[in-house]
This record gives sequence, structure tokens and C-alpha cells, in this order.
Amino acid sequence: MKPTLLDELRKGDRLALSRLLTQVERDTPSGRAALEELFPATGHAHKIGITGPPGSGKSTLVNALVYALRSLENDPKVAVVAVDPTSPFSGGAILGDRVRMLESQSDPKVFIRSMASRGALGGLAERTAAVTQVFDAAGYDFVIIETVGAGQSEVDIVRLAHTTIVVDIPGTGDDIQSIKAGILEIADILVVNKSDHPGADATLRNLSTMVAMGQRRQYSATKHGPSLSTPKAETEAEPAWYVPVLKTIAAEKTGIERLADAILRHGAYLRESGMWEQKEAAALRETIIKMLASTLLKNWRARIPDEELEAILAKVSARNISPQEAVERLLAL
Amino acid sequence: MKPTLLDELRKGDRLALSRLLTQVERDTPSGRAALEELFPATGHAHKIGITGPPGSGKSTLVNALVYALRSLENDPKVAVVAVDPTSPFSGGAILGDRVRMLESQSDPKVFIRSMASRGALGGLAERTAAVTQVFDAAGYDFVIIETVGAGQSEVDIVRLAHTTIVVDIPGTGDDIQSIKAGILEIADILVVNKSDHPGADATLRNLSTMVAMGQRRQYSATKHGPSLSTPKAETEAEPAWYVPVLKTIAAEKTGIERLADAILRHGAYLRESGMWEQKEAAALRETIIKMLASTLLKNWRARIPDEELEAILAKVSARNISPQEAVERLLAL
Repeated sequence: MKPTLLDELRKGDRLALSRLLTQVERDTPSGRAALEELFPATGHAHKIGITGPPGSGKSTLVNALVYALRSLENDPKVAVVAVDPTSPFSGGAILGDRVRMLESQSDPKVFIRSMASRGALGGLAERTAAVTQVFDAAGYDFVIIETVGAGQSEVDIVRLAHTTIVVDIPGTGDDIQSIKAGILEIADILVVNKSDHPGADATLRNLSTMVAMGQRRQYSATKHGPSLSTPKAETEAEPAWYVPVLKTIAAEKTGIERLADAILRHGAYLRESGMWEQKEAAALRETIIKMLASTLLKNWRARIPDEELEAILAKVSARNISPQEAVERLLAL
Repeated sequence: MKPTLLDELRKGDRLALSRLLTQVERDTPSGRAALEELFPATGHAHKIGITGPPGSGKSTLVNALVYALRSLENDPKVAVVAVDPTSPFSGGAILGDRVRMLESQSDPKVFIRSMASRGALGGLAERTAAVTQVFDAAGYDFVIIETVGAGQSEVDIVRLAHTTIVVDIPGTGDDIQSIKAGILEIADILVVNKSDHPGADATLRNLSTMVAMGQRRQYSATKHGPSLSTPKAETEAEPAWYVPVLKTIAAEKTGIERLADAILRHGAYLRESGMWEQKEAAALRETIIKMLASTLLKNWRARIPDEELEAILAKVSARNISPQEAVERLLAL
């Protein structure tokens, strides 16, 4: 019997894995077929997202975290998806970090994948999700998704993980926060890296205060807020997750065991509270809705003659009708 | 007769404009109605996008550029859309630049609008386009769209402008480019800012070489490449645009007149070559397709009973069927 794709991946064929990742990343027909085939084997990996401002040492932290996770008793497999070259701008520091990270490549249970740039093309979130799925099916226990870019889309990618880690550094001053409140809300774990730099304790205090305020607000919204439609809020409170604020010095591997421990605790919390399944279901729902929307548009487009579409678009260009009116006319065809 | 919204905007009521921008940015019903009403008056503003890596002095450059454009003989109105607070991370330098930019606010023919953050929510490209449309209808001759974030989505926003300016700075070394090739391809004008810093000439040479190589590749692709399907490529070549690489010191307002001149020349080139209309038509087409896709999905969703949708989604969560299979089943309902 011919070994299946899954067999090959599970027995640890790195070249087969690498080739498959390329197919999936390029969204080729064989890549899509493989995702389809592998799907039943997914849903086990703990996905960890790491984001933070440029210069916060994310890559070094990821490097240290890979070692810490690999030292766990159950000898887990760890994958890193570095969403890096797609950031349209990059500096020298990033490249240096990457080179250092290559050290872990000699460990057969570690696989580091940089997402290749496609120039100015989009779809990065979908491609990252697909690549993560392959690692999941291949039996990787942890998939770390790290972004080097500091834009909104990079953050959107990271927050799709089970556990989102936001990294900050000391010394950004009292009045100007380098991390916005909106970002704190997506963090499951906060890290103050380079905590041997001056101002680390002040940053730690600031972040802790902000986290505490945010959690009090969330708690009262759940208990007394407008979302009474969910009957759960009226009965027992969910087992709460208190966002830890941790100090690390990634370059010296200080504080990394505590970070790894917090990640494991968060994973356990998600599973016990049922939120793991909820997060998985929500991600799948989003994937399906996106596929549905593009299929609906494609089917509709196939029914509409080019001339009629172009005639209506020309009317909009001439400012004779508005885009809204054009949509109504097109749907009436 | 009650004055129309357009009348109010055209007579320069800044408070009315400011309120309308808020409605449009929040995508409220009245904001959408206003966009609909204003649409026939749009299509005149020259939209200028400015992007570049963090620390390249984009805000200072925009500040200087506003002054230069305001000094033109035809006394144009200039708007700035600063896509800034939506970047989830920010440092102190940005705030300083912003404060400096406020100077221009006292000029009644200048309007600066920062896009307000909505935390981790998306839709930034749509909101930026809508805000730009309001300025266009209100009679602003130039709308400068500036991003402070350095992510892919920020770049995607900027490249929707008529003229895209990419800003770089000297001293990033020979081997490591701070600007990737993919970004150079979207630039209509390249600027080496802070050109009094060491290494400016080397950066200028590097960028010029990269631009020349890119243009030769494009040219030969047009003349001899695989795109022979477009008959135009066989006949006369289009009037070409040679991407200028300009040196500026924005903080001293050096080189800004030449930049303003290049922008005007690019605008003239777009109009003469017919590309202005093509760009406008392409942007409208994209807007309409997006509106169509979301309407099609909404209409489909309204026809599908919740139970059937949830039942199929549950099968995917249980890994009994794949997302692709779910989409097929849902469309067959």
C-alpha cells in the first residue's frame, strides 16, 4: 500500500513537509487537496501568537521559548511560523535575529518556517492559517506564530492563535504607551522583555494596572452589562483567566520557564473552560464564511454577461449612478 | 431653499466637514447617505499616498509638502489623512511629529484628519477611502494619505492613491535593504529623506539602480513578454513614467519644491496617458465588487435557517466533514 501524505508527515520527513508547506503557501491545487486530506488530523496543536512593537526582541524571545518548550518532559514537537518577510520594510536587526534562530534548526523536533513574501499581494492571514494547519496535522504540539511587522494585519494574524502573547519593553516613558489599550485587550499573556533595562518596573506596574482595569471592566460587563441575552452570564461565572505580566531577558534566557509555564496554564484553562473548542469553532466558521463569500461571488459573476457588468461600471465612472445604485442594478440582472 | 450638504462643505464649513468625517468614519447610516449624495461631486482630487519604514520622517515630510503645495499659484486646498492611531504600536517620535503638524491647522485651506483607532477592528482601507471621498467632494485639490504603521495593510491603503511616494533614509547598509523590491514596484516617486545623514549618496545610487532594473524588466515584459494578448504592446509604447529618486531634508524643508513638482508632473502624466481614468475606474470597480460580495453573502444568509447552518458547522468542528465539503453542502441547501 502506498503511504499516505499524513503517514509521510507523521514519520518526520522534513523534506516532504517543506515541499508541502510551499504548495500550501502558494495555494496550488495540490496544496489545497493536501489541506483537504489533512483536515481530519488537525485541531490538536496549541497555537501561540507573539506580537509587539519593533525592537521588543520578539525573535530572540521566540528562540528562547522554543528551547524551553523542547525541554518539557513530554518531549513535544515545536514549529515556528515567522510572518516576517511579508512586512514590506525591514531592518538589519531582524536579519540578525533570524540567523541566530537557525541554531534550533538542527533539532529534528523543531521546524522554523518563514512566510515568503509575495511582494504587495495580500491573503497573508489565510496563508498563515493554512501553514499552521499543516504543522498541526503533522503532529506538532506547539505552533508559534510570530510577526515582525507592526501593522494591523500582522496583529490580526497573531490573535487567531489560542494564546496571544504581547511583548513590550521598558523605558518608553510614562505618558506615551508604546502599546495601545486595544492591543492589551487581545493579550492572554503580557511580557516585559529586556527587563534589565531601566524603567522595567515602571512598565510592569503600568501594564499590570491597565490589565487589572480592563479585567474589572470585562467582568462587570459580563455580570451586569447589556449582554443578558446569554443566560450563562446570569448563572455561575466562568473560571477566569488573569492575564499575567511577566519579566523576561530573552537574550539571557531569563524568565522563559515562567513564560512557558504560563502558556501551558493558559492552554489548560482554555480546555477546562470549553473555550478551546469555542476558539476552534469560531476560526473554522470564519474560514467557511470566507470560502462561501468568494464562491457566491464567483457563481454570480459566471451568470452575468461581461457587457452588462462593464456598462454599469462605466455609468459609475461617469458619475451617472452611485456605487450603491450599481450594486442594486447588478443584483437585479 | 435649504442648502445641500455639498453647499455647506463647499463654502468651507470646517465644523460641518469634521462632523461628516466622523459619521463616514463610523460608517453610520447618515454617513453612508452622505457618501451617496456626495458621490457625483467626486473624482477631482489628486490622491497622494506616502509610506516608508518607521523613522524615515514621513510626518515631517508631509508637513513640509503641505506648505509647498499651498504655495502653488492656483492656491489649492490640501487635506491630510493620517492613518496613524490604528497602528497598534506607537512610539514617542510619532506624537512629536503630530504636534508639529498641528501648525498647518491654522491655515483655512488645510485640513488634517487622523484616522481614529477602533482597537483591533479592521476595515481600515474602506474607511480611509470613504474619508478621502469626502475631502474630494468638499473641493480639496490634494488629499495626502500618510501611514505611520509599517505593515502590509498600511501599504495596501497608500497604494490606492494616484501617486504613491515611498520614503527611505540613508545608512541602512549595502547588503540589507530597508525597502524591499516589492515596495519599489508600487512607488511612483522615491524619496531619500534625511539626506544630510551619512550614506545618502549610496542609498540614492542603490535605489536608482533598483528602479532602473525594475523599469527595464517591465519594459521588456511589455514589448517582448508573454502578455501579447494585449495588442497595444505590439504597437506604440505608452508615454513612460520614469520613477524619480529625490533627496530631501524634510526638517529643513530642503528638496520639497522638487518633490511637489514631481507630484504635479506625475498627475499630468496620469491624465495625459489616460491612466488617471483607469485608476479611478479600477478603484470604483473594487468598491463595487466588495459591496456586491457582502450583499450576496447577506442575502444568502437570510435564506438559510440557523439550525441547518449550525448543524453543518458542527460537523466541521467534529472533523467529520472538511470546510470545502461544508461550503458545497451549504450552497446546495
